[in-house]
Amino acid sequence: MAYDPNTLPDVAGLAVGILGGTGDQGRGLGYRLARAGQKVIIGSRTAERGQTAAAELAAMPGVTGPVTGGDNLTAAQQADLVIVALPWQGHAETLAALATALADKIVVDCVNPLGFDNRGPYPLPVEEGSATQQAAGLLPQSRVCGAFHHVSAELLLDPSVERLDQDVLVVAEDRDAAAVVQALANRIPGLRGVYAGRLRNAHQVEALTANLLAINRRYKVHAGIRLTGV
Amino acid sequence: MAYDPNTLPDVAGLAVGILGGTGDQGRGLGYRLARAGQKVIIGSRTAERGQTAAAELAAMPGVTGPVTGGDNLTAAQQADLVIVALPWQGHAETLAALATALADKIVVDCVNPLGFDNRGPYPLPVEEGSATQQAAGLLPQSRVCGAFHHVSAELLLDPSVERLDQDVLVVAEDRDAAAVVQALANRIPGLRGVYAGRLRNAHQVEALTANLLAINRRYKVHAGIRLTGV
Repeated sequence: MAYDPNTLPDVAGLAVGILGGTGDQGRGLGYRLARAGQKVIIGSRTAERGQTAAAELAAMPGVTGPVTGGDNLTAAQQADLVIVALPWQGHAETLAALATALADKIVVDCVNPLGFDNRGPYPLPVEEGSATQQAAGLLPQSRVCGAFHHVSAELLLDPSVERLDQDVLVVAEDRDAAAVVQALANRIPGLRGVYAGRLRNAHQVEALTANLLAINRRYKVHAGIRLTGV
Repeated sequence: MAYDPNTLPDVAGLAVGILGGTGDQGRGLGYRLARAGQKVIIGSRTAERGQTAAAELAAMPGVTGPVTGGDNLTAAQQADLVIVALPWQGHAETLAALATALADKIVVDCVNPLGFDNRGPYPLPVEEGSATQQAAGLLPQSRVCGAFHHVSAELLLDPSVERLDQDVLVVAEDRDAAAVVQALANRIPGLRGVYAGRLRNAHQVEALTANLLAINRRYKVHAGIRLTGV
């Protein structure tokens, strides 16, 4: 059926945990979600770092949702839905240790396994196929999706940017979980969550970030993606 | 520097050969380019099939450029720039046999190595990394780029579609060749050619077609991609 945001669930009451929430992508998504009124829990390696980042986000312009912070385990436990914004180095190890806390929850991986050299960015090979599939393998009790790969952290963190003009490609095996993630993306002004295939099609969504970075570098922009015809 | 189509070269005089020009993608691109006034040479396994497809395209609404046809070797020899729209099966073999004819020419690969099963489309593993990189390896004397992966053949071939609302991601090592391909994309109303990284970033551009097909299936659309912020 045609894309219809009105068929998506109401997610305004969901508490969103962010693992690795002190990195740029995690802070950026946390800021936008809190600005949209979502309850956000910033997780980090230490409780202190998570709390500090949360206090900083809570003080940013336009934030209306409550922002708290703690270690990654606390964020996983307290949240209804968890975004994985961990560095690729440490991704597997950190998730494996949180499997019990993340059971039965929707887990949204936004990690892009990329390398950089003097010729620019390029996708790293991932044994499981993609970061999202690695997460799914480590978290068999969770409902793992991939999303939010392409949204520039710089735009997310810039309070003067009112709207983010792009679509969020959501990959998932679980259609209901995908709908929740789409609805969460739609909470951020200008973003639109679109179902974009199964987890075996996650790799190229993650890897395309290398192309977006190449485009940014070439044209001095912050490129995003919009699907046309949808 | 910022994206500026006015800096791209004038390609109106280029003769464009299309290898595998009797398939849907090849015919679709041939139609749009001929409709834009470009000289087009449709190549196929046999001269007869190429000639028949060319005669059919030449008779389609709005075609103003001359369309001729022949076998793939003829198309490679007579063209200034060659689009590779071959089936993935046979891609390597056909290109290897044409290496001499394609020497010194810009070769634009638009092939998406995909598989299909009852769960839908998925990218096939490619030993060289991508179809474009395979072409580059087989054609060391050619200027190989990747482009036109995401444009729906159905839209290309529908004469009632006046404009195609999407961007063409051009991957290339050779910046001047990329500019020619971008300019060629810009000849088709609604398309915009954008440099999108080096050949080592071709795989995910090709593979993303699987996501677009999943989106098409889910929402009953013909999805394309636009870059925002560029």
